[in-house]
Amino acid sequence: MSLTIKSHFAYPTYLSFTTKPSRFTGYNTKIRPNSIYHFNPLKLTYYQPKKMQAPVQYSPAPVIKSSLIEPDGGALVDLVVPEGERGAKTIEAESLPKVRLTKIDVEWVHVISEGWANPLKGFMREDEYLQSLHFNSLRLKDGSIVNMSLPIVLAIDDETKERIGSSSHVGLAGPDGDLIAILRSIEIYKHNKEERIARTWGTTAPGLPYVEEVIIPAGNCLIGGDLEVLKPVKYNDGLDHYRLSPKQLRKEFDRRNADAVFAFQLRNPVHNGHALLMNDTRRRLLEMGFKNPILLLHPLGGFTKADDVPLDVRMEQHSKVLEDGVLDPETTIVAIFPSPMHYAGPTEVAAYDMVAKKMAFFDPSRAKDFLFISGTKMRTYARTGENPPDGFMCPGGWEVLVKYYESLQAEEATQQPAAVSS
Amino acid sequence: MSLTIKSHFAYPTYLSFTTKPSRFTGYNTKIRPNSIYHFNPLKLTYYQPKKMQAPVQYSPAPVIKSSLIEPDGGALVDLVVPEGERGAKTIEAESLPKVRLTKIDVEWVHVISEGWANPLKGFMREDEYLQSLHFNSLRLKDGSIVNMSLPIVLAIDDETKERIGSSSHVGLAGPDGDLIAILRSIEIYKHNKEERIARTWGTTAPGLPYVEEVIIPAGNCLIGGDLEVLKPVKYNDGLDHYRLSPKQLRKEFDRRNADAVFAFQLRNPVHNGHALLMNDTRRRLLEMGFKNPILLLHPLGGFTKADDVPLDVRMEQHSKVLEDGVLDPETTIVAIFPSPMHYAGPTEVAAYDMVAKKMAFFDPSRAKDFLFISGTKMRTYARTGENPPDGFMCPGGWEVLVKYYESLQAEEATQQPAAVSS
Repeated sequence: MSLTIKSHFAYPTYLSFTTKPSRFTGYNTKIRPNSIYHFNPLKLTYYQPKKMQAPVQYSPAPVIKSSLIEPDGGALVDLVVPEGERGAKTIEAESLPKVRLTKIDVEWVHVISEGWANPLKGFMREDEYLQSLHFNSLRLKDGSIVNMSLPIVLAIDDETKERIGSSSHVGLAGPDGDLIAILRSIEIYKHNKEERIARTWGTTAPGLPYVEEVIIPAGNCLIGGDLEVLKPVKYNDGLDHYRLSPKQLRKEFDRRNADAVFAFQLRNPVHNGHALLMNDTRRRLLEMGFKNPILLLHPLGGFTKADDVPLDVRMEQHSKVLEDGVLDPETTIVAIFPSPMHYAGPTEVAAYDMVAKKMAFFDPSRAKDFLFISGTKMRTYARTGENPPDGFMCPGGWEVLVKYYESLQAEEATQQPAAVSS
Repeated sequence: MSLTIKSHFAYPTYLSFTTKPSRFTGYNTKIRPNSIYHFNPLKLTYYQPKKMQAPVQYSPAPVIKSSLIEPDGGALVDLVVPEGERGAKTIEAESLPKVRLTKIDVEWVHVISEGWANPLKGFMREDEYLQSLHFNSLRLKDGSIVNMSLPIVLAIDDETKERIGSSSHVGLAGPDGDLIAILRSIEIYKHNKEERIARTWGTTAPGLPYVEEVIIPAGNCLIGGDLEVLKPVKYNDGLDHYRLSPKQLRKEFDRRNADAVFAFQLRNPVHNGHALLMNDTRRRLLEMGFKNPILLLHPLGGFTKADDVPLDVRMEQHSKVLEDGVLDPETTIVAIFPSPMHYAGPTEVAAYDMVAKKMAFFDPSRAKDFLFISGTKMRTYARTGENPPDGFMCPGGWEVLVKYYESLQAEEATQQPAAVSS
């Protein structure tokens, strides 16, 4: 869960909040404030009347002009082959050695192909991988540096490497065998898993879901190259309409005349602590003189661990939160962020104030009045049918969760005899 | 052991060789070539005649003008208190809470105080520590980025933290209790050892000397602040004349009219494989048109592990290597690099060619002809009295090592009865 705002003023000011360690999705900022890195926000320019020579004062209502900032590295990456070329490219892909992707690999293809990892144009080659691991950033040809705190790589096993031989390009096939992309001018290099884990998470302790479920079982080689995606990645799960690409989101921000956009990424149901952060940010942006700040509520849609609340349930819960007016539908866009989840461990900023009976910013001077309700604790409440404290979540949203866990239990109950008899 | 050259041409060219992984001393470049980072070299400028419009060709004798490049971050750091102020500062230091330093902490004081870690002006505060851990670099106030791939930090235990209380400044005392510095505007923060180790070495496996001997036994807090050193750090071991500061080295480069400087840092005796790299680099610099390339042979003088060859023996061995003409005394400066050693594991570039009976660049097409002689293997030869292959090291230099190990064995022999009778 993270929330980042960056505004380019005459004297740069960065606002950045996060309630999780920065490695959460790979798109967050790790060193705050005044980080040089950011998650694509809007650029805002204060225009200073010419005769003023003194430094700009942050008056309550400065003159503001805004426009979308450039994506990292310039143009927005779009690696989907134009429709007219798909037939020929597919035939070419058929002729190439194949690499079979996992479900999570396909999520990364999705992330890369739409420019979520701008300016990355494919799975990392070794020079990019090493820069990401060691510097958490990529140095571009023009000398500029962009944040790239997670390696985005494709692992293959020795047998696949053998099969690729000296081919310069490979076809990428999804878990069901369908060809989905070509990887060009490939480079195969060593997948040093321990180093990757140690440098990415700062620990090699067991229990990290992405490490245990994705990295450890992966192949011992990485294959990098330029990606050409044969058609847009779709999931056909009834949620594709929530999967707005960066390009589509930019259009939507324009359509709504946003003069500021603040994004909140999470993989859990929205509780009132989250809502507090979002609504408070909006209040602060209005105080700063913005007229139409738009919230991007950005649930993560890729890999999550087995006991997390599934995406469809979360999307339904998010809808209820908007219906119940906890967040304002007029100023909120709900869209899915297609990245897999990297998990780094919980730290909360907002907590339940047991005196005021609501989610509030933690006040260390009366620490004993506060209850920290982690995502895990919240899921335990819902699973056991226990109600969370009043004011933790809107009733409609909570009901979605309770129903989900009831359905899980019903399912387990029906599966039990089958398991015993098998 | 590392060797790095950076030359600023009209079209930048970087030469960089290292025979150890980059974390060796913290002053090496990890991503080569075209790294943005470098170890203070000379700046060299090719002047292009004005009427030439085409890109510069690397002709055998281009017009060269050289000058020392600026230290990272601008001015060379010098944190030693001027003589006239030492009395007053010492009295002030006496009045402050004290932090007792280890021998290795004092080596870091030395490193920082002379600008070896330019632009660092003290032990890292948390913002610098996190930048170093996560980005391997520091972002300066002017927006420029300098390499800082190792955290340079001072650990304290909980008791010391308690004793410091709310004091803004502390006195730093050496292992024998002598006050050596003041640390100002301190900040105390958590020493997350596992994260530090994982992010610095890319592994948490046991067996890393600096980790096991320095980090694991250290305190659970780090204390950062600005350093004021009460007088230059001296060791009184008969080798202080080899300890040239960056300022003194710069003067020496000027005195010798160097138009290029290439540095070779190592913690082992110089064998002929090392010499091959150094002499070959000199040859290449001359071919590039430099008239007076100067080699800085830069043995590491700080912490090394117990079974390494001690500094005094290495300095004597280095002298022999120059006496025997393996390296040219006219174009070589031997000086001690005061940093502790971080150790990351061995990889060799130059190897012993068993056919040609000399150290040569490894030729993978006849891999079986080559023998890799690691520092550990070399020390084993010397310890057991076995001769290394012909051409591995000059005889005078080898004799220094053999004598050292003989003296160790003699010492052990005399100590044996004492140990038995006690």
